[in-house]
Amino acid sequence: MNHQIKNYNYRLLSLALMLLCCVAQAQVTDKYPADYAGDRIRFHALFIWDPNAESAHVEFDQQALHFFHKLSYGEGFTYDVRTECPNSLDSLKRYDVVVMLNALPHDADQRKAFEQYMEQGGGWIGFHATGYNDKDTHWPWFNEFLGCGTFLCNNWPPQPALVEVDTQLHPITRTLPKEFVVPASEFYQFSPSPRDNKDVEVLVSISPKNYPFGIKDIVLFGDFPIVWTNKNYRMVYLNMGHGDEGFIDATQNLLFTNAFRWISLPSVSSSETPKE
Amino acid sequence: MNHQIKNYNYRLLSLALMLLCCVAQAQVTDKYPADYAGDRIRFHALFIWDPNAESAHVEFDQQALHFFHKLSYGEGFTYDVRTECPNSLDSLKRYDVVVMLNALPHDADQRKAFEQYMEQGGGWIGFHATGYNDKDTHWPWFNEFLGCGTFLCNNWPPQPALVEVDTQLHPITRTLPKEFVVPASEFYQFSPSPRDNKDVEVLVSISPKNYPFGIKDIVLFGDFPIVWTNKNYRMVYLNMGHGDEGFIDATQNLLFTNAFRWISLPSVSSSETPKE
Amino acid sequence: MNHQIKNYNYRLLSLALMLLCCVAQAQVTDKYPADYAGDRIRFHALFIWDPNAESAHVEFDQQALHFFHKLSYGEGFTYDVRTECPNSLDSLKRYDVVVMLNALPHDADQRKAFEQYMEQGGGWIGFHATGYNDKDTHWPWFNEFLGCGTFLCNNWPPQPALVEVDTQLHPITRTLPKEFVVPASEFYQFSPSPRDNKDVEVLVSISPKNYPFGIKDIVLFGDFPIVWTNKNYRMVYLNMGHGDEGFIDATQNLLFTNAFRWISLPSVSSSETPKE
Repeated sequence: MNHQIKNYNYRLLSLALMLLCCVAQAQVTDKYPADYAGDRIRFHALFIWDPNAESAHVEFDQQALHFFHKLSYGEGFTYDVRTECPNSLDSLKRYDVVVMLNALPHDADQRKAFEQYMEQGGGWIGFHATGYNDKDTHWPWFNEFLGCGTFLCNNWPPQPALVEVDTQLHPITRTLPKEFVVPASEFYQFSPSPRDNKDVEVLVSISPKNYPFGIKDIVLFGDFPIVWTNKNYRMVYLNMGHGDEGFIDATQNLLFTNAFRWISLPSVSSSETPKE
Repeated sequence: MNHQIKNYNYRLLSLALMLLCCVAQAQVTDKYPADYAGDRIRFHALFIWDPNAESAHVEFDQQALHFFHKLSYGEGFTYDVRTECPNSLDSLKRYDVVVMLNALPHDADQRKAFEQYMEQGGGWIGFHATGYNDKDTHWPWFNEFLGCGTFLCNNWPPQPALVEVDTQLHPITRTLPKEFVVPASEFYQFSPSPRDNKDVEVLVSISPKNYPFGIKDIVLFGDFPIVWTNKNYRMVYLNMGHGDEGFIDATQNLLFTNAFRWISLPSVSSSETPKE
Repeated sequence: MNHQIKNYNYRLLSLALMLLCCVAQAQVTDKYPADYAGDRIRFHALFIWDPNAESAHVEFDQQALHFFHKLSYGEGFTYDVRTECPNSLDSLKRYDVVVMLNALPHDADQRKAFEQYMEQGGGWIGFHATGYNDKDTHWPWFNEFLGCGTFLCNNWPPQPALVEVDTQLHPITRTLPKEFVVPASEFYQFSPSPRDNKDVEVLVSISPKNYPFGIKDIVLFGDFPIVWTNKNYRMVYLNMGHGDEGFIDATQNLLFTNAFRWISLPSVSSSETPKE
């Protein structure tokens, strides 16, 4: 089943129009090269994490909250932090982007609210265990949304890895090198791979040069995307998110920043690079 | 007006001659590949910072002081730290290099002393807000020295960025990759750009691939040099310097090290790579 | 004198066979892409450091112990930590890999035990000062084992450096970029260089672009390998290991991880990349 985004969030649309006006105005008046928000709040974000998750997930999540907090300096956006997924669409609709840090909806109400939010054009970024699902998950919509099958295997322990940027044409990857080394994390393979889904655009993958990949649990082969978007939704999944090295690397930090901006400010960051 | 450096610091000249002698001697005797300082102190440095600056500048400055302190291990150079710029040339002339960390001369005496120091061949490295100036600065010499116009715009919040190395032929950039990602900082555009100044050599620039660049305040276009030297002085300006990620990246640390050595030991680091 | 490894450690051989069986089985049954250890312990490691070494070595060593501890999560391997080298072969034979962190055998018994261990196929990784030796060392076997002559010179202070990967065909370097910047360390040149030894495979070298290299003590020229293996032994020497920046860089962390796996799991990591 191939969903299309049917209902756009009105706040996002008006925000986009407002931004376009600002850009147009700046270019008409004096070609000032910057769009300053001033007192405008560009968007609203919700971060969800689980303080009772395994400690390596909590380590990543707490560092992630600090990382995104620093991106909020000056209140270009406001944000809330929760430890449970909201169980109503109304709660979710207040946010332009929902960032799930090793956490995802548990019960039927939370799942339903999240499905409705995304079907109506909501924005989502999921890290690491947020994408974990297996035969006991019993949530077919989530696989359709994520764009791939269930968890297949992982490397253990967490370690750095050479990754390949599948396309440098996307706003998320335009500023990344073609290949780079990401800091230590555990990585998941899914089956079927998201690359087999024609609605998915794979952005970053574990290089096959890493095989055999792992010390205790060793991944020997297989297609290994770790960052992708399902083009039927406003979403990005990032498989990083395990341990205390998630934010030591400038290049990975840029990847995270780009993903956050692309989802939160689609009208700005999806545009072609403006010309003077 | 095109200044040329007229008066060389005698200490530097004698230091240079001494080093050349050591190198020559080593090559004559047994081709020993290293020049050891032993008890010699190669140069004297002054670091200036402002403990009352905004907290993100103080964070960078304190980390910078630790970074340069580690470079002083073994006393290859001595250094002092001040929180105000000296107000006399005599105070400045004791140093081969003055490093301004988000700080610059405030009053007329400090400005005059600094002008004289630089005109007489002094060495300078300026980070980030040290280069900030606008219509209220009223210090034309500083713009002539810096080699560009006033502050034009900035990204906000601080974030990592893809940068391009404009030339790999310079001693400061010879060991840097052609492109790399610098860790999170705020970056300034100036107008006119230093690239428009024929006396300036631009070393590193923000890549246009970053556009639109920012989340709250978004730079949309424009020439964006961030590291350069005005060839009329012994100086390097580095636009990095905001927040707590300034020293997390080995490549940026090498850029800072190279810049510090090029200014502090011009006879050594400006030379062609010696051949065995 | 050209030693060849004569006696393989039986444990390693049986481990290798067991792993090969697992792989073969997985491919036959359902092409499951991963080899999980389950309750199996893949190997046993010994880490040796010297708490009385100079403080910059202790800083590196303690961070290294934390780094390798994280690689042991899930007990894919067990490990012991000692502050003295064992003085009997029996003590060493319990380990598949011995990692010497700025520490090496001191007295005759320790040296003899280590020689026997390596000659019988033991695994070794040495960091930084572990390789230091000069005219007062009086241990000819060690130079034959290390594959190079005595210490010749070093840069001072520790600083980042551009390095060249000499071959990307080796399991240790297959996932590294051709050139990258390593974080700050002190580096040693040896004379004769290990590259002059036909039994040595040099993996990573300081790029000549760094010359003149240093601020107090400046290396001017010379062949400068920093990671290599003597193919007559199961060993890797890594010259990094001085100061508190040894583990800030994802790419260097991957180099260390690859080296540790190649020595500890030779049958796995030396193999060609498996095909699905």
